[in-house]
Amino acid sequence: MTVLVNGARGQGVSPLDRGIHFGDGLFETIACRGGRPRFLTFHLERLISGCERLQIRAPEPELIAGEVCELARDADRAIVKVLVTRGAAVGRGYAAAGKETATRITIRYPWPDEDVSKSHDGVKVCTLSMRLGENPLLAGLKHCNRLEQILARAQWPADIDVSEGLLFSSSGNLVSGTLSNVFIVRGSIVQTPRIDLCGVAGVMRRVVIREMHQAGIRMQECVLRTEDLQEADEMFLTNARIGIWPVRELNSRAILPGPITRRLQEILAPLLEGPRDAA
Amino acid sequence: MTVLVNGARGQGVSPLDRGIHFGDGLFETIACRGGRPRFLTFHLERLISGCERLQIRAPEPELIAGEVCELARDADRAIVKVLVTRGAAVGRGYAAAGKETATRITIRYPWPDEDVSKSHDGVKVCTLSMRLGENPLLAGLKHCNRLEQILARAQWPADIDVSEGLLFSSSGNLVSGTLSNVFIVRGSIVQTPRIDLCGVAGVMRRVVIREMHQAGIRMQECVLRTEDLQEADEMFLTNARIGIWPVRELNSRAILPGPITRRLQEILAPLLEGPRDAA
Repeated sequence: MTVLVNGARGQGVSPLDRGIHFGDGLFETIACRGGRPRFLTFHLERLISGCERLQIRAPEPELIAGEVCELARDADRAIVKVLVTRGAAVGRGYAAAGKETATRITIRYPWPDEDVSKSHDGVKVCTLSMRLGENPLLAGLKHCNRLEQILARAQWPADIDVSEGLLFSSSGNLVSGTLSNVFIVRGSIVQTPRIDLCGVAGVMRRVVIREMHQAGIRMQECVLRTEDLQEADEMFLTNARIGIWPVRELNSRAILPGPITRRLQEILAPLLEGPRDAA
Repeated sequence: MTVLVNGARGQGVSPLDRGIHFGDGLFETIACRGGRPRFLTFHLERLISGCERLQIRAPEPELIAGEVCELARDADRAIVKVLVTRGAAVGRGYAAAGKETATRITIRYPWPDEDVSKSHDGVKVCTLSMRLGENPLLAGLKHCNRLEQILARAQWPADIDVSEGLLFSSSGNLVSGTLSNVFIVRGSIVQTPRIDLCGVAGVMRRVVIREMHQAGIRMQECVLRTEDLQEADEMFLTNARIGIWPVRELNSRAILPGPITRRLQEILAPLLEGPRDAA
């Protein structure tokens, strides 16, 4: 593992950092293959726009990009996490002073080989009972307030074969998995939850939506409820690391990985494999 | 300012700390007078029970108490903040491994004299438009996922005389101020929002509720809506630092600091002033 804090190794973070005190930051988890970060442009766009929404003075995108590329360069497979906090607090209390200097943490983690059966045969998924709070001002952001996801993971069922848990919002709407976005297929239409009240605007979600548009596959961002899941002909999960996982079982109901899921996997495959920047 | 990380000065926090990555921690803000922390027992109880709810392996309460008392000892007035995170991550991702070692940050801040007119004449309060997400698993905890409070502070009105903003939940129920709990008086009954879906179980809230019980003042924890605020005869705010602030104006409507608020202030005064541990 390699860890850089504001570009330097072996540094600690100030105990006054607002990241520690309030989770006042954002992060990106970037899959790197063949020495290159995948979808780096999309990751940077989301990070910078997230900083704008939270009024965090973002580091220069070129600086972040350079660091990510440097860490990715000599690894065949790696996960690079970029975390930006608002920085050390100026004074006490919640209010941001507006003159904090952002803290930048860049970490390279090993990326062990994925279990290919998950992409091929699909995964088992369950619904989790915890409901996510709704706040349109935070919706879509990959921010560092993640206690809900931690609690969701702590609700995991005893069945270790379950690869992902689906989460609903306090209003009862499907949001996402704990670390993935979710899509269902009904007939020839693909549907995925809106992320205007809750959830993360995943980079792979964006890529898959783009590819569907280009391939002429009809898709909708909409409100989805439990009953919609029950009527799904196909279901799949996306995230930047896994690409697409077909769902083969939801709460013990078998679902067949179907033609639209397979077609999207085929479309995505070269974007996930190659060393070129696919964004 | 004095800052201790796991008891030592001049230390940084590991960039792998889950506090930074996820806001995976809890904190207490303890008002210290005459060299002694106020209501230390209540603060420690909340911190330890919060750790239990989040399954964070809490530091020994005696260790925390000793550090707080040490920092408080030579200050006539000080605010001591204690922050406990789950500690440095074991691996990547949201799931806690269960074997992390908690990180303990203890900070002494100066506590400038309060504006006594706020306690005496009361404060101006407005309602804020941002709604807080609801999650019963997080409700009551003074946890480190505080982006909502940061965003609420960023919505502050231009009128700098406004001392606090009231927040409602996504369901439209009154929750609290951005840094205080709120009480209203209707006739002879005191009401305060339940904190089962949202909000923080404030230490001063607990003290005031205890004192009301002992004084025979009727009180209810209940669901309160905008219309309930409009019907309030009296209104006051509590937090560990300020004690009680009467509200003298809500969204430009004048409210008189009334007899129940005044009586509670009188009851509380010796507990706030003295150096003895009032909890």
